[in-house]
Amino acid sequence: MTMDEPHFVLESRKMSDLKPWKTLRSKLLLDHSPWLRVYEDQVALPDGRVIDGYIRLEEPDFVIVVPVQADGLIGLIRSYKHGIGAVDLQPPAGYLESDEDTLIAAKRELLEETGCEAEGWEKLGSYVISGNRGSGWAHLFLAIDCKQVTQPDSGDLEEQEVIWLPIDDVHRLWTEGEFGQVSTAAAIGLALARLKMELP
Amino acid sequence: MTMDEPHFVLESRKMSDLKPWKTLRSKLLLDHSPWLRVYEDQVALPDGRVIDGYIRLEEPDFVIVVPVQADGLIGLIRSYKHGIGAVDLQPPAGYLESDEDTLIAAKRELLEETGCEAEGWEKLGSYVISGNRGSGWAHLFLAIDCKQVTQPDSGDLEEQEVIWLPIDDVHRLWTEGEFGQVSTAAAIGLALARLKMELP
Repeated sequence: MTMDEPHFVLESRKMSDLKPWKTLRSKLLLDHSPWLRVYEDQVALPDGRVIDGYIRLEEPDFVIVVPVQADGLIGLIRSYKHGIGAVDLQPPAGYLESDEDTLIAAKRELLEETGCEAEGWEKLGSYVISGNRGSGWAHLFLAIDCKQVTQPDSGDLEEQEVIWLPIDDVHRLWTEGEFGQVSTAAAIGLALARLKMELP
Repeated sequence: MTMDEPHFVLESRKMSDLKPWKTLRSKLLLDHSPWLRVYEDQVALPDGRVIDGYIRLEEPDFVIVVPVQADGLIGLIRSYKHGIGAVDLQPPAGYLESDEDTLIAAKRELLEETGCEAEGWEKLGSYVISGNRGSGWAHLFLAIDCKQVTQPDSGDLEEQEVIWLPIDDVHRLWTEGEFGQVSTAAAIGLALARLKMELP
Protein backbone atom coordinates (compact mmCIF):
# COMPACT_ATOMS: atom_id res chain seq x y z
CA MET A 1 0.00 0.00 0.00
CA THR A 2 1.40 3.42 -0.91
CA MET A 3 1.10 6.47 1.32
CA ASP A 4 -1.48 8.26 -0.83
CA GLU A 5 -4.04 5.47 -0.83
CA PRO A 6 -7.07 5.93 1.42
CA HIS A 7 -6.19 4.29 4.71
CA PHE A 8 -9.75 4.33 6.00
CA VAL A 9 -10.66 1.47 3.68
CA LEU A 10 -7.87 -0.98 4.35
CA GLU A 11 -7.93 -0.25 8.05
CA SER A 12 -11.69 -0.49 8.27
CA ARG A 13 -11.52 -3.41 10.66
CA LYS A 14 -9.31 -1.45 13.04
CA MET A 15 -11.43 1.74 13.15
CA SER A 16 -12.33 2.63 16.67
CA ASP A 17 -15.73 4.28 16.30
CA LEU A 18 -17.61 0.96 16.34
CA LYS A 19 -17.09 -0.72 19.68
CA PRO A 20 -16.92 -4.50 20.11
CA TRP A 21 -19.46 -6.43 22.11
CA LYS A 22 -18.34 -7.67 25.52
CA THR A 23 -18.89 -11.34 26.40
CA LEU A 24 -20.11 -11.41 30.01
CA ARG A 25 -20.71 -15.14 30.28
CA SER A 26 -20.28 -18.13 27.97
CA LYS A 27 -22.16 -21.33 28.72
CA LEU A 28 -21.24 -24.59 26.96
CA LEU A 29 -24.52 -26.08 25.71
CA LEU A 30 -23.16 -29.03 23.75
CA ASP A 31 -19.68 -30.54 23.58
CA HIS A 32 -19.18 -32.81 20.59
CA SER A 33 -15.42 -32.26 20.36
CA PRO A 34 -13.45 -32.20 18.15
CA TRP A 35 -16.23 -31.45 15.63
CA LEU A 36 -18.51 -29.04 17.42
CA ARG A 37 -18.95 -27.03 20.60
CA VAL A 38 -22.08 -24.92 21.02
CA TYR A 39 -21.98 -21.96 23.40
CA GLU A 40 -24.69 -19.63 24.61
CA ASP A 41 -23.12 -16.23 25.20
CA GLN A 42 -24.43 -13.40 27.34
CA VAL A 43 -23.14 -10.24 25.65
CA ALA A 44 -23.15 -6.53 26.50
CA LEU A 45 -23.76 -4.28 23.49
CA PRO A 46 -22.02 -0.88 23.28
CA ASP A 47 -25.36 0.87 23.95
CA GLY A 48 -25.63 -0.86 27.33
CA ARG A 49 -28.18 -3.54 26.43
CA VAL A 50 -27.43 -7.06 27.64
CA ILE A 51 -28.41 -9.91 25.31
CA ASP A 52 -28.89 -13.45 26.58
CA GLY A 53 -28.69 -16.65 24.59
CA TYR A 54 -26.54 -15.52 21.66
CA ILE A 55 -25.43 -18.77 20.00
CA ARG A 56 -21.76 -19.23 19.11
CA LEU A 57 -20.28 -22.33 17.42
CA GLU A 58 -16.74 -23.64 17.57
CA GLU A 59 -15.82 -25.96 14.70
CA PRO A 60 -12.37 -26.93 13.41
CA ASP A 61 -10.59 -24.73 10.89
CA PHE A 62 -10.02 -26.14 7.43
CA VAL A 63 -7.97 -25.45 4.31
CA ILE A 64 -9.16 -25.21 0.72
CA VAL A 65 -6.55 -25.60 -2.04
CA VAL A 66 -7.23 -24.58 -5.65
CA PRO A 67 -4.63 -26.55 -7.66
CA VAL A 68 -3.49 -25.44 -11.11
CA GLN A 69 -1.28 -27.40 -13.50
CA ALA A 70 1.31 -25.73 -15.73
CA ASP A 71 -1.07 -26.17 -18.70
CA GLY A 72 -3.75 -24.16 -16.85
CA LEU A 73 -6.05 -27.02 -15.84
CA ILE A 74 -7.72 -26.61 -12.43
CA GLY A 75 -8.24 -29.62 -10.18
CA LEU A 76 -11.61 -30.31 -8.55
CA ILE A 77 -13.00 -33.13 -6.45
CA ARG A 78 -16.38 -34.70 -7.18
CA SER A 79 -17.97 -36.32 -4.17
CA TYR A 80 -21.24 -36.68 -2.28
CA LYS A 81 -21.57 -33.96 0.38
CA HIS A 82 -23.91 -34.78 3.25
CA GLY A 83 -24.50 -31.07 4.05
CA ILE A 84 -26.08 -30.65 0.60
CA GLY A 85 -27.47 -34.15 0.22
CA ALA A 86 -26.03 -34.31 -3.29
CA VAL A 87 -22.86 -34.80 -5.30
CA ASP A 88 -20.91 -31.54 -5.60
CA LEU A 89 -17.69 -30.19 -7.10
CA GLN A 90 -15.13 -28.53 -4.83
CA PRO A 91 -11.38 -27.96 -4.63
CA PRO A 92 -9.32 -30.27 -2.42
CA ALA A 93 -10.07 -29.37 1.20
CA GLY A 94 -9.85 -30.72 4.70
CA TYR A 95 -9.75 -29.99 8.40
CA LEU A 96 -6.53 -28.95 10.10
CA GLU A 97 -4.96 -31.56 12.32
CA SER A 98 -4.39 -30.20 15.83
CA ASP A 99 -1.99 -27.22 15.87
CA GLU A 100 -1.10 -27.88 12.23
CA ASP A 101 0.27 -24.96 10.23
CA THR A 102 -2.20 -23.98 7.51
CA LEU A 103 0.30 -24.26 4.62
CA ILE A 104 1.43 -27.69 5.80
CA ALA A 105 -2.20 -28.77 5.98
CA ALA A 106 -2.77 -27.40 2.47
CA LYS A 107 0.19 -29.40 1.10
CA ARG A 108 -1.03 -32.54 2.89
CA GLU A 109 -4.60 -32.23 1.58
CA LEU A 110 -3.40 -31.54 -1.98
CA LEU A 111 -1.22 -34.67 -1.91
CA GLU A 112 -3.88 -36.87 -0.28
CA GLU A 113 -6.75 -35.83 -2.51
CA THR A 114 -5.01 -35.39 -5.89
CA GLY A 115 -1.61 -37.08 -5.53
CA CYS A 116 0.01 -33.77 -6.55
CA GLU A 117 2.76 -31.52 -5.30
CA ALA A 118 2.95 -27.82 -6.25
CA GLU A 119 5.90 -25.63 -7.24
CA GLY A 120 4.38 -22.44 -5.83
CA TRP A 121 1.89 -21.48 -3.14
CA GLU A 122 -0.15 -18.32 -2.68
CA LYS A 123 -2.41 -17.53 0.23
CA LEU A 124 -5.89 -16.30 -0.73
CA GLY A 125 -6.90 -15.21 2.76
CA SER A 126 -8.59 -16.61 5.87
CA TYR A 127 -12.33 -16.24 6.38
CA VAL A 128 -14.70 -16.99 9.22
CA ILE A 129 -17.55 -19.31 8.23
CA SER A 130 -20.26 -17.36 10.07
CA GLY A 131 -20.01 -13.69 10.96
CA ASN A 132 -22.66 -14.23 13.63
CA ARG A 133 -21.86 -17.71 15.00
CA GLY A 134 -18.16 -18.23 14.31
CA SER A 135 -18.10 -21.87 13.14
CA GLY A 136 -14.36 -21.99 12.40
CA TRP A 137 -12.19 -20.48 9.69
CA ALA A 138 -11.45 -21.42 6.08
CA HIS A 139 -7.83 -20.84 4.99
CA LEU A 140 -7.64 -20.55 1.19
CA PHE A 141 -4.65 -21.33 -1.03
CA LEU A 142 -3.71 -21.37 -4.68
CA ALA A 143 -1.27 -24.19 -5.58
CA ILE A 144 0.66 -23.40 -8.77
CA ASP A 145 2.37 -25.75 -11.27
CA CYS A 146 0.95 -28.90 -9.72
CA LYS A 147 2.49 -32.20 -10.78
CA GLN A 148 1.20 -35.70 -10.10
CA VAL A 149 3.70 -37.58 -7.92
CA THR A 150 1.51 -40.41 -6.57
CA GLN A 151 -2.03 -41.75 -6.55
CA PRO A 152 -4.74 -39.93 -4.57
CA ASP A 153 -5.60 -41.53 -1.23
CA SER A 154 -7.83 -39.17 0.71
CA GLY A 155 -8.83 -41.39 3.61
CA ASP A 156 -12.12 -39.46 3.65
CA LEU A 157 -15.50 -41.11 4.15
CA GLU A 158 -16.60 -39.86 0.74
CA GLU A 159 -16.03 -41.75 -2.51
CA GLN A 160 -14.41 -39.15 -4.71
CA GLU A 161 -12.85 -38.54 -8.09
CA VAL A 162 -10.45 -35.86 -9.31
CA ILE A 163 -11.24 -33.96 -12.51
CA TRP A 164 -9.07 -31.33 -14.18
CA LEU A 165 -10.91 -28.59 -16.10
CA PRO A 166 -9.80 -25.63 -18.23
CA ILE A 167 -9.93 -22.22 -16.51
CA ASP A 168 -12.74 -21.00 -18.79
CA ASP A 169 -14.95 -23.96 -17.82
CA VAL A 170 -14.28 -23.34 -14.13
CA HIS A 171 -15.08 -19.65 -14.61
CA ARG A 172 -18.39 -20.54 -16.29
CA LEU A 173 -19.35 -23.05 -13.58
CA TRP A 174 -18.54 -20.40 -10.97
CA THR A 175 -20.56 -17.55 -12.52
CA GLU A 176 -23.47 -19.90 -13.26
CA GLY A 177 -23.74 -20.86 -9.59
CA GLU A 178 -22.89 -24.53 -10.22
CA PHE A 179 -20.65 -24.88 -7.18
CA GLY A 180 -22.91 -25.72 -4.25
CA GLN A 181 -20.79 -24.65 -1.27
CA VAL A 182 -20.20 -21.03 -0.25
CA SER A 183 -16.54 -21.64 0.61
CA THR A 184 -15.99 -23.16 -2.84
CA ALA A 185 -17.53 -20.08 -4.48
CA ALA A 186 -15.19 -17.87 -2.43
CA ALA A 187 -12.05 -19.93 -3.15
CA ILE A 188 -12.68 -20.37 -6.88
CA GLY A 189 -13.42 -16.65 -7.37
CA LEU A 190 -10.27 -15.55 -5.56
CA ALA A 191 -8.14 -18.14 -7.38
CA LEU A 192 -9.46 -17.03 -10.79
CA ALA A 193 -8.78 -13.38 -9.92
CA ARG A 194 -5.21 -14.25 -8.91
CA LEU A 195 -4.61 -16.38 -12.02
CA LYS A 196 -5.96 -13.63 -14.23
CA MET A 197 -3.55 -11.10 -12.70
CA GLU A 198 -0.69 -13.48 -13.39
CA LEU A 199 -1.62 -14.29 -16.97
CA PRO A 200 0.39 -12.37 -19.59
CA MET B 1 -25.57 -24.32 -23.27
CA THR B 2 -25.08 -25.58 -26.84
CA MET B 3 -25.16 -29.23 -27.86
CA ASP B 4 -21.44 -29.52 -28.45
CA GLU B 5 -20.39 -28.38 -24.99
CA PRO B 6 -19.34 -31.08 -22.54
CA HIS B 7 -22.46 -32.01 -20.61
CA PHE B 8 -20.55 -33.91 -17.96
CA VAL B 9 -19.40 -30.68 -16.40
CA LEU B 10 -22.65 -28.81 -15.97
CA GLU B 11 -24.48 -31.95 -15.01
CA SER B 12 -21.80 -33.03 -12.59
CA ARG B 13 -24.13 -32.89 -9.65
CA LYS B 14 -26.60 -35.18 -11.40
CA MET B 15 -24.12 -37.87 -12.45
CA SER B 16 -25.11 -41.26 -11.19
CA ASP B 17 -21.77 -42.96 -10.62
CA LEU B 18 -21.32 -41.45 -7.16
CA LYS B 19 -24.08 -42.66 -4.90
CA PRO B 20 -25.56 -40.57 -2.09
CA TRP B 21 -25.26 -41.55 1.54
CA LYS B 22 -28.39 -42.93 3.17
CA THR B 23 -29.52 -41.44 6.50
CA LEU B 24 -30.61 -44.37 8.67
CA ARG B 25 -31.39 -42.41 11.83
CA SER B 26 -31.29 -38.76 12.84
CA LYS B 27 -31.19 -37.86 16.53
CA LEU B 28 -31.86 -34.29 17.68
CA LEU B 29 -29.04 -33.41 20.10
CA LEU B 30 -29.86 -29.74 20.70
CA ASP B 31 -32.91 -27.66 19.78
CA HIS B 32 -32.28 -23.95 19.95
CA SER B 33 -34.90 -23.03 17.34
CA PRO B 34 -35.17 -20.88 15.33
CA TRP B 35 -31.40 -20.33 15.33
CA LEU B 36 -29.93 -23.80 15.57
CA ARG B 37 -30.79 -27.47 15.63
CA VAL B 38 -27.98 -30.00 16.02
CA TYR B 39 -28.53 -33.55 14.76
CA GLU B 40 -26.43 -36.67 15.07
CA ASP B 41 -27.00 -38.77 11.94
CA GLN B 42 -26.34 -42.45 11.47
CA VAL B 43 -25.49 -42.82 7.78
CA ALA B 44 -24.87 -45.75 5.43
CA LEU B 45 -22.05 -45.16 2.94
CA PRO B 46 -22.32 -46.61 -0.60
CA ASP B 47 -19.58 -49.15 0.26
CA GLY B 48 -21.75 -50.61 3.02
CA ARG B 49 -20.05 -49.02 6.03
CA VAL B 50 -22.34 -47.50 8.67
CA ILE B 51 -21.11 -44.31 10.36
CA ASP B 52 -22.47 -43.17 13.70
CA GLY B 53 -22.45 -39.66 15.13
CA TYR B 54 -22.14 -37.63 11.94
CA ILE B 55 -23.01 -34.07 13.01
CA ARG B 56 -25.52 -32.06 10.94
CA LEU B 57 -26.61 -28.49 11.69
CA GLU B 58 -29.83 -26.75 10.73
CA GLU B 59 -29.61 -22.96 10.74
CA PRO B 60 -31.85 -20.41 9.01
CA ASP B 61 -31.19 -19.44 5.41
CA PHE B 62 -30.11 -15.88 4.72
CA VAL B 63 -29.76 -13.44 1.84
CA ILE B 64 -26.75 -11.32 0.90
CA VAL B 65 -27.34 -8.32 -1.36
CA VAL B 66 -24.51 -6.53 -3.18
CA PRO B 67 -25.98 -3.09 -3.99
CA VAL B 68 -24.62 -0.95 -6.82
CA GLN B 69 -25.57 2.65 -7.58
CA ALA B 70 -25.85 4.00 -11.14
CA ASP B 71 -22.47 5.72 -10.66
CA GLY B 72 -20.84 2.35 -9.90
CA LEU B 73 -20.45 2.73 -6.13
CA ILE B 74 -20.93 -0.50 -4.14
CA GLY B 75 -22.65 -0.41 -0.76
CA LEU B 76 -21.15 -2.13 2.28
CA ILE B 77 -22.05 -2.31 5.94
CA ARG B 78 -19.49 -1.79 8.69
CA SER B 79 -20.39 -3.43 11.96
CA TYR B 80 -19.02 -5.51 14.80
CA LYS B 81 -19.46 -9.24 14.08
CA HIS B 82 -19.48 -11.50 17.13
CA GLY B 83 -18.40 -14.56 15.06
CA ILE B 84 -15.13 -12.78 14.27
CA GLY B 85 -14.84 -10.73 17.44
CA ALA B 86 -14.04 -7.66 15.34
CA VAL B 87 -15.53 -4.98 13.12
CA ASP B 88 -15.94 -6.22 9.54
CA LEU B 89 -17.22 -5.03 6.16
CA GLN B 90 -19.98 -6.98 4.44
CA PRO B 91 -22.82 -6.39 2.00
CA PRO B 92 -26.34 -5.95 3.42
CA ALA B 93 -27.53 -9.35 4.63
CA GLY B 94 -30.04 -10.99 6.89
CA TYR B 95 -31.97 -14.11 7.77
CA LEU B 96 -35.13 -15.05 5.89
CA GLU B 97 -38.33 -14.58 7.80
CA SER B 98 -40.35 -17.81 7.91
CA ASP B 99 -41.37 -18.98 4.42
CA GLU B 100 -40.22 -15.68 2.95
CA ASP B 101 -39.33 -15.65 -0.75
CA THR B 102 -35.60 -15.01 -1.16
CA LEU B 103 -36.01 -12.01 -3.52
CA ILE B 104 -38.55 -10.39 -1.18
CA ALA B 105 -36.12 -10.91 1.71
CA ALA B 106 -33.33 -9.38 -0.38
CA LYS B 107 -35.44 -6.27 -1.12
CA ARG B 108 -36.40 -5.99 2.55
CA GLU B 109 -32.80 -6.26 3.79
CA LEU B 110 -31.54 -3.76 1.22
CA LEU B 111 -34.18 -1.24 2.30
CA GLU B 112 -33.68 -1.81 6.04
CA GLU B 113 -29.88 -1.69 5.98
CA THR B 114 -29.23 1.01 3.35
CA GLY B 115 -32.58 2.78 2.82
CA CYS B 116 -32.29 1.95 -0.90
CA GLU B 117 -34.49 0.44 -3.57
CA ALA B 118 -33.02 -1.12 -6.74
CA GLU B 119 -34.13 -0.90 -10.38
CA GLY B 120 -32.84 -4.36 -11.28
CA TRP B 121 -32.10 -7.62 -9.51
CA GLU B 122 -29.87 -10.52 -10.50
CA LYS B 123 -29.51 -13.79 -8.64
CA LEU B 124 -25.90 -14.87 -7.98
CA GLY B 125 -26.77 -18.38 -6.82
CA SER B 126 -27.57 -20.26 -3.61
CA TYR B 127 -24.85 -21.95 -1.59
CA VAL B 128 -24.82 -24.23 1.42
CA ILE B 129 -22.72 -22.89 4.29
CA SER B 130 -21.08 -26.23 5.14
CA GLY B 131 -20.71 -29.09 2.67
CA ASN B 132 -20.29 -31.46 5.61
CA ARG B 133 -22.69 -30.06 8.24
CA GLY B 134 -25.34 -28.18 6.27
CA SER B 135 -25.77 -25.03 8.44
CA GLY B 136 -28.32 -23.33 6.13
CA TRP B 137 -28.05 -21.67 2.74
CA ALA B 138 -26.87 -18.25 1.57
CA HIS B 139 -28.90 -16.76 -1.31
CA LEU B 140 -26.85 -14.14 -3.13
CA PHE B 141 -28.16 -11.17 -5.13
CA LEU B 142 -26.86 -8.20 -7.09
CA ALA B 143 -29.06 -5.09 -6.75
CA ILE B 144 -28.55 -2.71 -9.69
CA ASP B 145 -29.17 1.06 -9.93
CA CYS B 146 -29.85 1.48 -6.23
CA LYS B 147 -31.40 4.76 -5.11
CA GLN B 148 -31.79 6.07 -1.57
CA VAL B 149 -35.49 6.39 -0.72
CA THR B 150 -35.37 6.54 3.08
CA GLN B 151 -33.00 6.34 6.05
CA PRO B 152 -31.48 2.97 7.03
CA ASP B 153 -33.17 1.30 10.01
CA SER B 154 -31.83 -2.23 10.31
CA GLY B 155 -33.32 -3.24 13.64
CA ASP B 156 -30.22 -5.45 14.09
CA LEU B 157 -28.35 -5.75 17.38
CA GLU B 158 -25.23 -4.38 15.73
CA GLU B 159 -24.41 -0.68 15.47
CA GLN B 160 -23.68 -0.24 11.81
CA GLU B 161 -22.84 2.28 9.13
CA VAL B 162 -23.22 2.21 5.36
CA ILE B 163 -20.28 3.11 3.15
CA TRP B 164 -20.26 3.33 -0.65
CA LEU B 165 -16.96 2.47 -2.36
CA PRO B 166 -15.79 2.51 -6.00
CA ILE B 167 -15.67 -0.90 -7.72
CA ASP B 168 -11.86 -0.81 -7.95
CA ASP B 169 -11.54 -0.32 -4.18
CA VAL B 170 -13.94 -3.19 -3.52
CA HIS B 171 -11.98 -5.38 -5.95
CA ARG B 172 -8.75 -4.57 -4.12
CA LEU B 173 -10.24 -5.26 -0.68
CA TRP B 174 -11.56 -8.58 -2.03
CA THR B 175 -8.28 -9.81 -3.58
CA GLU B 176 -6.30 -8.65 -0.55
CA GLY B 177 -8.41 -10.81 1.76
CA GLU B 178 -9.77 -7.81 3.70
CA PHE B 179 -13.34 -9.15 3.93
CA GLY B 180 -13.44 -11.40 6.97
CA GLN B 181 -16.46 -13.62 6.20
CA VAL B 182 -16.42 -16.44 3.64
CA SER B 183 -19.93 -15.63 2.38
CA THR B 184 -18.87 -12.01 1.81
CA ALA B 185 -15.87 -13.19 -0.22
CA ALA B 186 -18.19 -15.37 -2.33
CA ALA B 187 -20.82 -12.66 -2.87
CA ILE B 188 -18.37 -9.86 -3.69
CA GLY B 189 -16.45 -12.02 -6.18
CA LEU B 190 -19.59 -13.11 -8.01
CA ALA B 191 -20.98 -9.56 -8.05
CA LEU B 192 -17.73 -8.15 -9.47
CA ALA B 193 -17.69 -10.85 -12.17
CA ARG B 194 -21.27 -10.00 -13.12
CA LEU B 195 -20.62 -6.26 -13.16
CA LYS B 196 -17.54 -6.76 -15.30
CA MET B 197 -19.55 -8.76 -17.87
CA GLU B 198 -22.06 -5.90 -18.04
CA LEU B 199 -19.53 -3.12 -18.49
CA PRO B 200 -19.21 -1.88 -22.08
